[in-house]
Amino acid sequence: MNKIITIGREFGSGGREAGRRIAELLGIAYYDREIIAEIAKRTSLSENYVRNVAEHKPVIPFPIHTGRTFWAVIPDYGQSVQQEQHNIIREMASHSDCVIVGRGADYILRDFNPFRLFIYSDMSSKIKRCQDNSTSDYDRGAGMTEDELEKRINQINKSRADYYEFYTGQKWGDKANYDLCINTAKIEPIKIAEFVAKIC
Amino acid sequence: MNKIITIGREFGSGGREAGRRIAELLGIAYYDREIIAEIAKRTSLSENYVRNVAEHKPVIPFPIHTGRTFWAVIPDYGQSVQQEQHNIIREMASHSDCVIVGRGADYILRDFNPFRLFIYSDMSSKIKRCQDNSTSDYDRGAGMTEDELEKRINQINKSRADYYEFYTGQKWGDKANYDLCINTAKIEPIKIAEFVAKIC
Repeated sequence: MNKIITIGREFGSGGREAGRRIAELLGIAYYDREIIAEIAKRTSLSENYVRNVAEHKPVIPFPIHTGRTFWAVIPDYGQSVQQEQHNIIREMASHSDCVIVGRGADYILRDFNPFRLFIYSDMSSKIKRCQDNSTSDYDRGAGMTEDELEKRINQINKSRADYYEFYTGQKWGDKANYDLCINTAKIEPIKIAEFVAKIC
Repeated sequence: MNKIITIGREFGSGGREAGRRIAELLGIAYYDREIIAEIAKRTSLSENYVRNVAEHKPVIPFPIHTGRTFWAVIPDYGQSVQQEQHNIIREMASHSDCVIVGRGADYILRDFNPFRLFIYSDMSSKIKRCQDNSTSDYDRGAGMTEDELEKRINQINKSRADYYEFYTGQKWGDKANYDLCINTAKIEPIKIAEFVAKIC
Protein backbone atom coordinates (compact mmCIF):
# COMPACT_ATOMS: atom_id res chain seq x y z
CA MET A 1 0.00 0.00 0.00
CA ASN A 2 1.25 3.48 -0.81
CA LYS A 3 2.58 5.88 1.80
CA ILE A 4 -0.21 8.41 2.32
CA ILE A 5 0.09 11.47 4.54
CA THR A 6 -3.01 13.58 5.09
CA ILE A 7 -2.92 17.05 6.62
CA GLY A 8 -5.77 18.90 8.27
CA ARG A 9 -4.88 22.46 9.21
CA GLU A 10 -6.19 25.63 10.71
CA PHE A 11 -5.94 28.60 8.35
CA GLY A 12 -2.83 30.61 9.21
CA SER A 13 -1.01 27.76 10.92
CA GLY A 14 1.44 26.90 8.12
CA GLY A 15 -0.11 23.53 7.26
CA ARG A 16 0.41 23.90 3.52
CA GLU A 17 4.05 24.80 4.00
CA ALA A 18 4.52 21.76 6.24
CA GLY A 19 2.81 19.59 3.64
CA ARG A 20 4.96 20.84 0.77
CA ARG A 21 8.13 20.35 2.81
CA ILE A 22 7.14 16.80 3.80
CA ALA A 23 6.49 15.95 0.15
CA GLU A 24 9.84 17.48 -0.87
CA LEU A 25 11.78 15.61 1.82
CA LEU A 26 10.15 12.30 0.96
CA GLY A 27 10.17 12.95 -2.79
CA ILE A 28 6.49 12.17 -3.15
CA ALA A 29 3.47 13.86 -4.74
CA TYR A 30 1.78 16.85 -3.09
CA TYR A 31 -1.87 17.79 -3.59
CA ASP A 32 -4.16 20.54 -2.38
CA ARG A 33 -5.92 22.91 -4.78
CA GLU A 34 -4.83 20.77 -7.68
CA ILE A 35 -7.59 18.41 -6.60
CA ILE A 36 -10.23 21.06 -7.26
CA ALA A 37 -8.69 21.91 -10.63
CA GLU A 38 -8.82 18.23 -11.53
CA ILE A 39 -12.46 18.08 -10.52
CA ALA A 40 -13.28 21.07 -12.69
CA LYS A 41 -11.64 19.37 -15.66
CA ARG A 42 -13.53 16.14 -15.15
CA THR A 43 -17.01 17.39 -14.40
CA SER A 44 -19.24 18.86 -17.04
CA LEU A 45 -19.66 21.95 -14.87
CA SER A 46 -16.63 24.18 -15.31
CA GLU A 47 -15.38 26.41 -12.52
CA ASN A 48 -16.44 29.46 -14.55
CA TYR A 49 -19.96 28.16 -14.90
CA VAL A 50 -20.23 27.54 -11.19
CA ARG A 51 -18.89 31.00 -10.40
CA ASN A 52 -21.38 32.52 -12.83
CA VAL A 53 -24.31 30.77 -11.19
CA ALA A 54 -23.16 31.79 -7.75
CA GLU A 55 -22.63 35.43 -8.73
CA HIS A 56 -25.76 36.08 -10.78
CA LYS A 57 -28.34 34.01 -8.92
CA PRO A 58 -30.61 33.48 -11.95
CA VAL A 59 -34.25 34.48 -11.47
CA ILE A 60 -36.66 31.61 -11.58
CA PRO A 61 -39.34 32.65 -14.14
CA PHE A 62 -42.10 30.27 -13.06
CA PRO A 63 -43.55 28.86 -9.87
CA ILE A 64 -42.06 25.59 -8.77
CA HIS A 65 -44.47 23.04 -7.34
CA THR A 66 -42.13 20.15 -6.87
CA GLY A 67 -41.29 21.13 -3.32
CA ARG A 68 -37.75 22.08 -4.36
CA THR A 69 -36.56 25.54 -5.32
CA PHE A 70 -33.90 26.17 -7.92
CA TRP A 71 -31.44 26.72 -5.14
CA ALA A 72 -32.30 23.37 -3.67
CA VAL A 73 -30.54 21.95 -6.71
CA ILE A 74 -27.24 23.39 -5.56
CA PRO A 75 -26.69 20.77 -2.85
CA ASP A 76 -27.02 18.09 -5.55
CA TYR A 77 -24.31 19.82 -7.51
CA GLY A 78 -22.31 20.04 -4.29
CA GLN A 79 -22.73 16.34 -3.73
CA SER A 80 -21.66 15.64 -7.27
CA VAL A 81 -18.48 17.68 -6.81
CA GLN A 82 -17.88 16.01 -3.48
CA GLN A 83 -18.28 12.54 -4.98
CA GLU A 84 -15.92 13.40 -7.81
CA GLN A 85 -13.41 14.85 -5.35
CA HIS A 86 -13.71 11.70 -3.26
CA ASN A 87 -12.99 9.55 -6.32
CA ILE A 88 -10.02 11.66 -7.38
CA ILE A 89 -8.46 11.60 -3.91
CA ARG A 90 -8.76 7.81 -3.81
CA GLU A 91 -7.32 7.56 -7.31
CA MET A 92 -4.35 9.72 -6.37
CA ALA A 93 -3.72 7.66 -3.25
CA SER A 94 -3.92 4.43 -5.25
CA HIS A 95 -1.55 5.76 -7.87
CA SER A 96 1.46 6.78 -5.76
CA ASP A 97 2.79 7.88 -2.38
CA CYS A 98 1.47 11.35 -1.63
CA VAL A 99 0.72 14.18 0.77
CA ILE A 100 -2.85 15.51 0.60
CA VAL A 101 -3.76 18.74 2.37
CA GLY A 102 -7.35 19.31 3.46
CA ARG A 103 -10.52 18.00 1.76
CA GLY A 104 -11.22 15.49 4.54
CA ALA A 105 -8.68 13.14 2.96
CA ASP A 106 -7.91 11.50 6.33
CA TYR A 107 -11.51 10.23 6.37
CA ILE A 108 -11.88 9.52 2.64
CA LEU A 109 -8.69 7.42 2.73
CA ARG A 110 -9.25 5.76 6.10
CA ASP A 111 -8.92 2.29 4.58
CA PHE A 112 -5.50 3.27 3.16
CA ASN A 113 -4.14 3.60 6.70
CA PRO A 114 -2.84 7.13 6.13
CA PHE A 115 -0.60 9.00 8.54
CA ARG A 116 -2.94 11.74 9.74
CA LEU A 117 -1.45 15.07 10.72
CA PHE A 118 -3.27 18.13 12.08
CA ILE A 119 -1.54 21.53 12.17
CA TYR A 120 -2.84 24.28 14.42
CA SER A 121 -1.69 27.35 16.28
CA ASP A 122 -2.79 30.05 18.66
CA MET A 123 -4.52 33.14 17.24
CA SER A 124 -1.60 35.55 17.68
CA SER A 125 0.70 33.21 15.73
CA LYS A 126 -1.90 32.76 13.01
CA ILE A 127 -2.31 36.53 12.65
CA LYS A 128 1.45 37.00 12.52
CA ARG A 129 1.78 34.34 9.83
CA CYS A 130 -0.99 35.96 7.78
CA GLN A 131 0.72 39.33 8.03
CA ASP A 132 3.97 37.87 6.74
CA ASN A 133 4.02 38.64 3.04
CA SER A 134 7.01 36.42 2.46
CA THR A 135 4.66 33.43 2.14
CA SER A 136 2.40 33.60 -0.88
CA ASP A 137 -0.27 31.64 0.98
CA TYR A 138 -1.22 34.47 3.26
CA ASP A 139 -0.41 37.72 1.48
CA ARG A 140 -4.14 38.24 1.09
CA GLY A 141 -4.04 39.45 4.69
CA ALA A 142 -1.83 42.41 3.86
CA GLY A 143 -3.39 45.74 4.79
CA MET A 144 -5.99 44.22 7.14
CA THR A 145 -6.09 45.19 10.81
CA GLU A 146 -5.49 42.49 13.42
CA ASP A 147 -9.20 42.46 14.29
CA GLU A 148 -10.13 42.02 10.63
CA LEU A 149 -7.57 39.25 10.26
CA GLU A 150 -8.84 37.45 13.35
CA LYS A 151 -12.39 37.61 12.03
CA ARG A 152 -11.28 36.31 8.64
CA ILE A 153 -9.24 33.48 10.17
CA ASN A 154 -12.19 32.44 12.34
CA GLN A 155 -14.54 32.55 9.35
CA ILE A 156 -12.30 30.37 7.21
CA ASN A 157 -11.71 27.88 10.01
CA LYS A 158 -15.44 27.72 10.76
CA SER A 159 -16.02 26.95 7.11
CA ARG A 160 -13.36 24.21 7.15
CA ALA A 161 -14.85 22.70 10.30
CA ASP A 162 -18.37 22.73 8.81
CA TYR A 163 -17.17 21.13 5.59
CA TYR A 164 -15.21 18.42 7.39
CA GLU A 165 -17.96 17.63 9.84
CA PHE A 166 -20.66 17.54 7.16
CA TYR A 167 -18.78 15.06 4.99
CA THR A 168 -17.12 12.91 7.65
CA GLY A 169 -19.45 13.03 10.66
CA GLN A 170 -16.33 13.63 12.74
CA LYS A 171 -15.21 16.67 14.69
CA TRP A 172 -12.62 18.72 12.81
CA GLY A 173 -9.36 18.97 14.74
CA ASP A 174 -10.33 16.39 17.39
CA LYS A 175 -6.99 14.76 18.20
CA ALA A 176 -8.62 11.32 18.40
CA ASN A 177 -8.89 11.42 14.60
CA TYR A 178 -5.19 12.15 14.03
CA ASP A 179 -1.81 10.54 14.68
CA LEU A 180 -0.03 13.79 15.36
CA CYS A 181 -1.28 17.30 16.19
CA ILE A 182 1.33 20.05 16.07
CA ASN A 183 1.07 23.62 17.30
CA THR A 184 3.20 25.78 15.02
CA ALA A 185 3.48 28.58 17.59
CA LYS A 186 6.57 26.77 18.86
CA ILE A 187 7.44 24.27 16.14
CA GLU A 188 8.44 25.45 12.67
CA PRO A 189 7.03 23.66 9.59
CA ILE A 190 10.52 22.47 8.57
CA LYS A 191 10.92 20.67 11.92
CA ILE A 192 7.52 19.07 11.47
CA ALA A 193 8.51 17.93 8.00
CA GLU A 194 11.78 16.39 9.20
CA PHE A 195 9.99 14.46 11.95
CA VAL A 196 7.15 13.22 9.75
CA ALA A 197 9.56 12.24 6.97
CA LYS A 198 11.55 10.25 9.52
CA ILE A 199 8.67 8.30 11.03
CA CYS A 200 6.59 7.70 7.88
CA MET B 1 15.08 30.17 32.18
CA ASN B 2 15.35 26.42 32.54
CA LYS B 3 14.22 23.98 29.87
CA ILE B 4 10.94 22.57 31.15
CA ILE B 5 9.01 19.81 29.40
CA THR B 6 5.59 18.87 30.78
CA ILE B 7 3.74 15.74 29.78
CA GLY B 8 0.03 15.08 30.09
CA ARG B 9 -0.93 11.53 29.17
CA GLU B 10 -3.80 9.11 28.89
CA PHE B 11 -3.31 6.01 31.03
CA GLY B 12 -1.98 3.20 28.85
CA SER B 13 -0.54 5.45 26.16
CA GLY B 14 3.14 5.20 27.13
CA GLY B 15 3.47 8.78 28.35
CA ARG B 16 5.75 7.91 31.28
CA GLU B 17 8.06 5.92 29.01
CA ALA B 18 8.22 8.85 26.59
CA GLY B 19 8.97 11.19 29.50
CA ARG B 20 11.77 9.03 30.87
CA ARG B 21 13.34 8.69 27.43
CA ILE B 22 13.19 12.43 26.79
CA ALA B 23 14.90 13.09 30.13
CA GLU B 24 17.55 10.46 29.34
CA LEU B 25 18.26 11.85 25.87
CA LEU B 26 18.52 15.42 27.16
CA GLY B 27 20.31 14.41 30.35
CA ILE B 28 17.88 16.32 32.55
CA ALA B 29 15.79 15.54 35.65
CA TYR B 30 12.62 13.45 35.44
CA TYR B 31 9.72 13.68 37.90
CA ASP B 32 6.40 11.95 38.35
CA ARG B 33 5.54 10.02 41.51
CA GLU B 34 8.63 11.43 43.19
CA ILE B 35 6.66 14.63 43.51
CA ILE B 36 4.08 12.92 45.71
CA ALA B 37 6.80 11.28 47.79
CA GLU B 38 8.37 14.68 48.31
CA ILE B 39 5.02 16.13 49.35
CA ALA B 40 4.53 13.34 51.88
CA LYS B 41 7.95 14.08 53.35
CA ARG B 42 7.29 17.80 53.64
CA THR B 43 3.76 17.87 54.94
CA SER B 44 2.93 16.92 58.49
CA LEU B 45 0.39 14.44 57.20
CA SER B 46 2.17 11.27 56.17
CA GLU B 47 0.84 9.09 53.37
CA ASN B 48 0.04 6.41 55.95
CA TYR B 49 -2.03 8.80 58.02
CA VAL B 50 -4.00 9.88 54.99
CA ARG B 51 -4.63 6.29 53.96
CA ASN B 52 -5.78 5.49 57.50
CA VAL B 53 -8.27 8.34 57.50
CA ALA B 54 -9.61 7.34 54.13
CA GLU B 55 -9.98 3.67 55.05
CA HIS B 56 -11.47 3.99 58.54
CA LYS B 57 -13.71 7.03 58.14
CA PRO B 58 -13.65 7.99 61.83
CA VAL B 59 -17.05 8.38 63.48
CA ILE B 60 -17.85 11.90 64.58
CA PRO B 61 -18.89 11.59 68.27
CA PHE B 62 -20.78 14.85 68.58
CA PRO B 63 -23.08 17.03 66.50
CA ILE B 64 -21.38 19.69 64.48
CA HIS B 65 -23.12 23.05 64.28
CA THR B 66 -20.54 25.03 62.38
CA GLY B 67 -22.12 24.23 59.05
CA ARG B 68 -19.18 22.02 58.11
CA THR B 69 -19.04 18.25 58.59
CA PHE B 70 -15.85 16.39 59.45
CA TRP B 71 -15.63 15.31 55.86
CA ALA B 72 -15.84 18.89 54.76
CA VAL B 73 -12.34 19.18 56.20
CA ILE B 74 -11.02 16.76 53.60
CA PRO B 75 -11.09 19.29 50.76
CA ASP B 76 -8.95 21.59 52.91
CA TYR B 77 -6.47 18.79 53.31
CA GLY B 78 -6.68 18.25 49.54
CA GLN B 79 -6.02 21.91 48.94
CA SER B 80 -3.07 21.81 51.29
CA VAL B 81 -1.54 18.88 49.42
CA GLN B 82 -2.28 20.58 46.14
CA GLN B 83 -0.66 23.82 47.28
CA GLU B 84 2.41 21.93 48.50
CA GLN B 85 2.60 20.02 45.23
CA HIS B 86 2.27 23.29 43.32
CA ASN B 87 5.17 24.77 45.31
CA ILE B 88 7.36 21.72 44.83
CA ILE B 89 6.74 21.61 41.08
CA ARG B 90 7.69 25.29 40.79
CA GLU B 91 10.76 24.72 42.95
CA MET B 92 11.88 21.80 40.78
CA ALA B 93 11.39 23.86 37.62
CA SER B 94 13.35 26.76 39.12
CA HIS B 95 16.17 24.47 40.19
CA SER B 96 17.07 22.75 36.90
CA ASP B 97 15.96 21.64 33.46
CA CYS B 98 13.39 18.86 33.87
CA VAL B 99 10.62 16.67 32.51
CA ILE B 100 7.48 16.57 34.67
CA VAL B 101 4.77 14.00 33.96
CA GLY B 102 1.20 14.73 35.01
CA ARG B 103 0.06 16.84 38.00
CA GLY B 104 -1.15 19.69 35.79
CA ALA B 105 2.43 20.92 35.54
CA ASP B 106 1.78 22.54 32.15
CA TYR B 107 -0.65 24.90 33.90
CA ILE B 108 1.27 25.32 37.16
CA LEU B 109 4.41 26.27 35.20
CA ARG B 110 2.72 28.35 32.49
CA ASP B 111 4.91 31.37 33.29
CA PHE B 112 8.03 29.18 32.77
CA ASN B 113 7.10 28.80 29.07
CA PRO B 114 7.27 24.99 29.21
CA PHE B 115 7.16 22.74 26.17
CA ARG B 116 3.79 21.04 26.66
CA LEU B 117 3.36 17.51 25.36
CA PHE B 118 0.22 15.36 25.48
CA ILE B 119 0.42 11.63 24.81
CA TYR B 120 -2.70 9.66 23.88
CA SER B 121 -3.78 6.59 21.98
CA ASP B 122 -6.79 4.64 20.81
CA MET B 123 -8.40 2.17 23.20
CA SER B 124 -7.13 -1.00 21.51
CA SER B 125 -3.55 0.24 21.71
CA LYS B 126 -3.98 1.24 25.36
CA ILE B 127 -5.36 -2.20 26.21
CA LYS B 128 -2.49 -3.87 24.37
CA ARG B 129 0.06 -1.76 26.22
CA CYS B 130 -1.54 -2.58 29.57
CA GLN B 131 -1.43 -6.29 28.74
CA ASP B 132 2.26 -6.08 27.95
CA ASN B 133 4.02 -7.22 31.10
CA SER B 134 7.38 -6.13 29.79
CA THR B 135 6.70 -2.62 31.06
CA SER B 136 6.47 -2.33 34.81
CA ASP B 137 4.03 0.58 34.49
CA TYR B 138 1.18 -1.55 33.32
CA ASP B 139 1.67 -5.07 34.66
CA ARG B 140 -1.19 -4.38 37.05
CA GLY B 141 -3.43 -5.17 34.09
CA ALA B 142 -2.24 -8.78 33.85
CA GLY B 143 -5.05 -11.28 34.24
CA MET B 144 -7.83 -8.79 33.51
CA THR B 145 -10.18 -9.29 30.58
CA GLU B 146 -10.21 -6.69 27.81
CA ASP B 147 -13.56 -5.38 29.06
CA GLU B 148 -12.19 -5.04 32.59
CA LEU B 149 -9.11 -3.29 31.29
CA GLU B 150 -11.16 -0.88 29.18
CA LYS B 151 -13.28 -0.01 32.20
CA ARG B 152 -10.18 0.53 34.34
CA ILE B 153 -8.47 2.68 31.70
CA ASN B 154 -11.58 4.83 31.34
CA GLN B 155 -11.88 5.21 35.12
CA ILE B 156 -8.27 6.30 35.52
CA ASN B 157 -8.48 8.73 32.62
CA LYS B 158 -11.75 10.16 33.95
CA SER B 159 -10.02 10.71 37.26
CA ARG B 160 -7.06 12.44 35.56
CA ALA B 161 -9.41 14.65 33.55
CA ASP B 162 -11.39 15.61 36.67
CA TYR B 163 -8.20 16.41 38.62
CA TYR B 164 -6.75 18.50 35.80
CA GLU B 165 -9.94 20.38 35.10
CA PHE B 166 -10.58 21.07 38.80
CA TYR B 167 -7.16 22.57 39.39
CA THR B 168 -6.59 24.31 36.07
CA GLY B 169 -10.04 25.27 34.80
CA GLN B 170 -8.89 23.91 31.42
CA LYS B 171 -10.04 20.87 29.48
CA TRP B 172 -7.68 17.91 29.88
CA GLY B 173 -6.23 16.81 26.54
CA ASP B 174 -7.56 19.81 24.59
CA LYS B 175 -4.85 20.33 21.97
CA ALA B 176 -5.11 24.11 22.33
CA ASN B 177 -3.34 23.74 25.70
CA TYR B 178 -0.38 21.79 24.28
CA ASP B 179 2.43 22.29 21.79
CA LEU B 180 2.42 18.72 20.58
CA CYS B 181 -0.14 15.90 20.87
CA ILE B 182 1.07 12.46 19.85
CA ASN B 183 -0.95 9.31 19.31
CA THR B 184 1.23 6.35 20.30
CA ALA B 185 -0.83 3.89 18.26
CA LYS B 186 1.52 4.69 15.37
CA ILE B 187 4.45 6.50 16.96
CA GLU B 188 6.69 4.73 19.46
CA PRO B 189 7.80 6.59 22.62
CA ILE B 190 11.47 6.48 21.52
CA LYS B 191 10.60 8.36 18.31
CA ILE B 192 8.68 10.92 20.34
CA ALA B 193 11.68 11.34 22.63
CA GLU B 194 14.09 11.83 19.74
CA PHE B 195 11.86 14.49 18.19
CA VAL B 196 11.21 16.38 21.44
CA ALA B 197 14.88 16.24 22.41
CA LYS B 198 15.73 17.74 19.02
CA ILE B 199 13.31 20.64 19.08
CA CYS B 200 13.55 21.57 22.78
